[in-house]
Amino acid sequence: MQLGIVGLGRMGGNIARRLKKAGHDCVVWDRNEAAVQELGGEGNRPAGDLTDLVAKLDAPRAIWVMLPAGGPTEMTIATLAGMLSPGDVIIDGGNTFYKDDIRRAAELEPKGIHYIDVGTSGGVWGLERGYCMMIGGTKEAVDRLDPIFAALAPGLGEIPRTPGREERDSRVEHGYMHCGPAGSGHFVKMVHNGIEYGLMQAYAEGFEILKKKNSDALPENERFTLDMADVAEVWRRGSVVSSWLLDLSAIALTKDEHLSDFPGEVADSGEGRWTVMAAIEEAVSAEVLSAALYTRFRSRQDHTFGEKLLSAMRFQFGGHTEFKSK
Amino acid sequence: MQLGIVGLGRMGGNIARRLKKAGHDCVVWDRNEAAVQELGGEGNRPAGDLTDLVAKLDAPRAIWVMLPAGGPTEMTIATLAGMLSPGDVIIDGGNTFYKDDIRRAAELEPKGIHYIDVGTSGGVWGLERGYCMMIGGTKEAVDRLDPIFAALAPGLGEIPRTPGREERDSRVEHGYMHCGPAGSGHFVKMVHNGIEYGLMQAYAEGFEILKKKNSDALPENERFTLDMADVAEVWRRGSVVSSWLLDLSAIALTKDEHLSDFPGEVADSGEGRWTVMAAIEEAVSAEVLSAALYTRFRSRQDHTFGEKLLSAMRFQFGGHTEFKSK
Amino acid sequence: MQLGIVGLGRMGGNIARRLKKAGHDCVVWDRNEAAVQELGGEGNRPAGDLTDLVAKLDAPRAIWVMLPAGGPTEMTIATLAGMLSPGDVIIDGGNTFYKDDIRRAAELEPKGIHYIDVGTSGGVWGLERGYCMMIGGTKEAVDRLDPIFAALAPGLGEIPRTPGREERDSRVEHGYMHCGPAGSGHFVKMVHNGIEYGLMQAYAEGFEILKKKNSDALPENERFTLDMADVAEVWRRGSVVSSWLLDLSAIALTKDEHLSDFPGEVADSGEGRWTVMAAIEEAVSAEVLSAALYTRFRSRQDHTFGEKLLSAMRFQFGGHTEFKSK
Amino acid sequence: MQLGIVGLGRMGGNIARRLKKAGHDCVVWDRNEAAVQELGGEGNRPAGDLTDLVAKLDAPRAIWVMLPAGGPTEMTIATLAGMLSPGDVIIDGGNTFYKDDIRRAAELEPKGIHYIDVGTSGGVWGLERGYCMMIGGTKEAVDRLDPIFAALAPGLGEIPRTPGREERDSRVEHGYMHCGPAGSGHFVKMVHNGIEYGLMQAYAEGFEILKKKNSDALPENERFTLDMADVAEVWRRGSVVSSWLLDLSAIALTKDEHLSDFPGEVADSGEGRWTVMAAIEEAVSAEVLSAALYTRFRSRQDHTFGEKLLSAMRFQFGGHTEFKSK
Repeated sequence: MQLGIVGLGRMGGNIARRLKKAGHDCVVWDRNEAAVQELGGEGNRPAGDLTDLVAKLDAPRAIWVMLPAGGPTEMTIATLAGMLSPGDVIIDGGNTFYKDDIRRAAELEPKGIHYIDVGTSGGVWGLERGYCMMIGGTKEAVDRLDPIFAALAPGLGEIPRTPGREERDSRVEHGYMHCGPAGSGHFVKMVHNGIEYGLMQAYAEGFEILKKKNSDALPENERFTLDMADVAEVWRRGSVVSSWLLDLSAIALTKDEHLSDFPGEVADSGEGRWTVMAAIEEAVSAEVLSAALYTRFRSRQDHTFGEKLLSAMRFQFGGHTEFKSK
Repeated sequence: MQLGIVGLGRMGGNIARRLKKAGHDCVVWDRNEAAVQELGGEGNRPAGDLTDLVAKLDAPRAIWVMLPAGGPTEMTIATLAGMLSPGDVIIDGGNTFYKDDIRRAAELEPKGIHYIDVGTSGGVWGLERGYCMMIGGTKEAVDRLDPIFAALAPGLGEIPRTPGREERDSRVEHGYMHCGPAGSGHFVKMVHNGIEYGLMQAYAEGFEILKKKNSDALPENERFTLDMADVAEVWRRGSVVSSWLLDLSAIALTKDEHLSDFPGEVADSGEGRWTVMAAIEEAVSAEVLSAALYTRFRSRQDHTFGEKLLSAMRFQFGGHTEFKSK
Repeated sequence: MQLGIVGLGRMGGNIARRLKKAGHDCVVWDRNEAAVQELGGEGNRPAGDLTDLVAKLDAPRAIWVMLPAGGPTEMTIATLAGMLSPGDVIIDGGNTFYKDDIRRAAELEPKGIHYIDVGTSGGVWGLERGYCMMIGGTKEAVDRLDPIFAALAPGLGEIPRTPGREERDSRVEHGYMHCGPAGSGHFVKMVHNGIEYGLMQAYAEGFEILKKKNSDALPENERFTLDMADVAEVWRRGSVVSSWLLDLSAIALTKDEHLSDFPGEVADSGEGRWTVMAAIEEAVSAEVLSAALYTRFRSRQDHTFGEKLLSAMRFQFGGHTEFKSK
Repeated sequence: MQLGIVGLGRMGGNIARRLKKAGHDCVVWDRNEAAVQELGGEGNRPAGDLTDLVAKLDAPRAIWVMLPAGGPTEMTIATLAGMLSPGDVIIDGGNTFYKDDIRRAAELEPKGIHYIDVGTSGGVWGLERGYCMMIGGTKEAVDRLDPIFAALAPGLGEIPRTPGREERDSRVEHGYMHCGPAGSGHFVKMVHNGIEYGLMQAYAEGFEILKKKNSDALPENERFTLDMADVAEVWRRGSVVSSWLLDLSAIALTKDEHLSDFPGEVADSGEGRWTVMAAIEEAVSAEVLSAALYTRFRSRQDHTFGEKLLSAMRFQFGGHTEFKSK
């Protein structure tokens, strides 16, 4: 099946590669010409620009946009909207805010252009393991592109089947889900990332409690010498907390139990923030997801104004002197 | 290898069964005679009381106590201490507070009795999948009992190996770890459970945000109709949030997407609380683990006094009337 | 000085009363005719409708809109915008989202109409104690209305002066502050309310810990019989936690130490939510303000879907049965 | 009335001074001889050592121990216990854990020695404003020492009376409360400090949100130039968030709006930690008090191991490189 791909970064490039392996015919473009050449050299059809990409596809076309959310995606979709014909499909595979999907689908609908939003999880492992996809859009467009989604998805693999799914949508077991209308794919992906933050922070706190139990600051009879890598490894086997994130933690801790290469300043993306905002809109008490987000905020800051104010109050009422050493 | 087992509840009974399958020779006792008969009928040697159990084992003996933490475990170990000989081993496989382990080991040491604490994860799935074990105690005693631990553990299974473990303790990859001296096994298990609470709460909040997005209370154009069971299932395939807890969530949600059989009052055990207390002792900022614990507290309460006080303040300053309807 | 007042609810009515006492000339209107009559009977000039209200004021006019945020305020300001002349001032004294203020000020500016946003704290006590006001808008307009603000504000009172304020804007010490351009008044008020939630929740948690220490569920030798009203009262005298909210708590607890009239379902307004959203936009780790908001969410809900999912997972992995009693 | 005072630090010294002003007769001792000399020079009776202090008091004696909680207090009380006679009273005015009070009172009771625990709030302002006192102990001992408590307390002052207190214990309105048996005074004081942490953190977060709204990092049209000192000041006048802590914030912010002298590393004392532990023991969901405590933990740490683990996981699944710059 033909697919245009715009944006050949790590995600877009690997999507093309995985589709190529499955025998699909990808026309690829990126403003970075080297990336186009590289993917072209692997058997995909390179395009010279967006116009060329559109021209190289037979109608009804399908174009997968895999760009940073916000400006780049927005502008590319607007440009494509002017070039495409009724029946064509634009797929946004990036990390777009779901309300933007809803708006765009409504804007494209009068032109007869379908809009599909695909939340994609799998990171750098996706090329090998396949991508878990959460898809929003019209039934017609999602069904038409099924061969693409099927090729990108992980498939059944060796994961044990969940009992009772026999009568249910089998695509889901292959790792892709048509969640509902435009926006619903990115909504589910957004919450997915919110959960991801929470899971990561749960492990982070637990390992920190373990690590500090080894601290020289403790009296010798209260101290252990727990091996962080071994703990992560043993929990991978039959314990309640086993997970893919734990597998990855085990890999990292086995390389360096002290994680000394990592400074501990942790980025956050839109999705973690939007998840908390969605929780607030819905009046959901999202303590854990918020706390996980806030930890990342704090990790990137030197002492906050709030902390200084705490010291200032303490000085005022108690004469506690937490002054800067000069 | 011979092992005495005291306490034949779900955990103790299944431990005997798994050891029996591996060819070990278990002498079993429980104050519930029916349980003794049942296990006896499966080929284990039944004991009439603790004295009989001790008598039926050859020195140096090893006795696994699998009872509720606190009183029952404490008393049984005290009784056994009076019956055993130098070189014997008492194993506490329950959910004991790690500081109690340290105390007990110190009390037994002058008598030459070894004390081993085993944190055991795996729940009702352990019989089939094997138990993940975190073990504290002297090297001598832990090494001597290795055949027991090896039989209970899940083993390598089909789980991908973590790169770089070639030179490391291979027991860990089989699902059991000698964490350090007495207490360290239960300490690691305690933190394990703290993490478990955090992971569970992350999923709980995420699914609640998804579920509320289906709510009739939302305007139709802001509402989706997300299928909870499908979301859980699709995330099992190649996504960053895949885990065993997610597998279990998928099973539960596939049975009943609304989880109507569950009232939502969630118990908490000592380990969740002790983990937060350990964090406080170590000055670790354990936001997520605390929030997960507090959610459970709140889930079991009707409106709190604190909430009433909020209403009372609001009435005082703003005339907001959040009174009881009479 | 002349002032039009639209909206004669508790806040709007008391503002008119406080201005009347200070000798100002208020033209008042509300869609509830009885309210207009009542205020008219107290010496204010009643208007028959918005047109009449505008007609009864001399140019340059100033009209204070004191209506629920959102639709009612938005429509009233839009209507007034069509009736007013260059140099007139519209004041929004309600709880408007500050970004709406910025938008409105920009819309009115080409017409020469000034827009002032006033965040007003003081609740039902404002008539007697005066209102604390946080004001956004052009210097010209804010300065022109100074007699109005001065009359509404509490004034210096008997509150001890803060050392070092001699050279600073004296309006602030009288209880009103020109915070900056349009929107800044409501922004400061928004954060004020966010803090208010946090303060309230701190007291709520503390008193709940005290109250539960009296619980019959505790063993007798771990139990106290602390008097809630006395604790609140004693803290009003010289303690670090004394505050107006504590004064109000003392009043409420003295009336009924058990607060039995309050069901404990606590409303939240836009400002608490917006404060957390602003924190997220700014990457501020607002743990306490979020937690205070979430408590209110949870207080209004029966068992959440998230809590049911926790039970469902526990049943799956451990056979823990937290089922509904039938 | 006679009172022995052991410990002449900031608190102990000022207690002696305030009692002296009220005409009481204090015998004072501290291991720091200069402090004894200084207080002696102000008209108190200096003691050479504990034995001398006891000898200089008429039976039944009362001795106020005002030392750091833990070792120093514990040892002093043990020493005094050996020197005192039936009917004498030991008062612990420090920050003792309430369970230690309960233990000590039980130990002293067979000797006929009374034990009183006094939680004291007021900090460096207490000499001038008086101390708010929360008192635990037997009725007999607390009543006997009433003149001492009355002299130390702030008294009615000009604080508005709470309606409905006419029939209630009038000591409370004077700023001291007999909370119940030994331990109850420090329990109430412990919760007081927990609340204090929560209140402080609420202000800290709010002011941080305000401050960041001034940030150069924001686009000019989204930025304000809010004056931190003015905001604190205006809220002191008639707003819902007025409090003594806000008064102190206003003083600090007026001195230096940027609080540049404060590094932002904030100490925490036992009471904040114990409050959270008490909440956990009682199953109270103490989100705000915990979060306030955790902020202080985090403020004193460089990047945590948990944060590094987050980066490590992100690198593993997404190739996100949050490495140390070399």
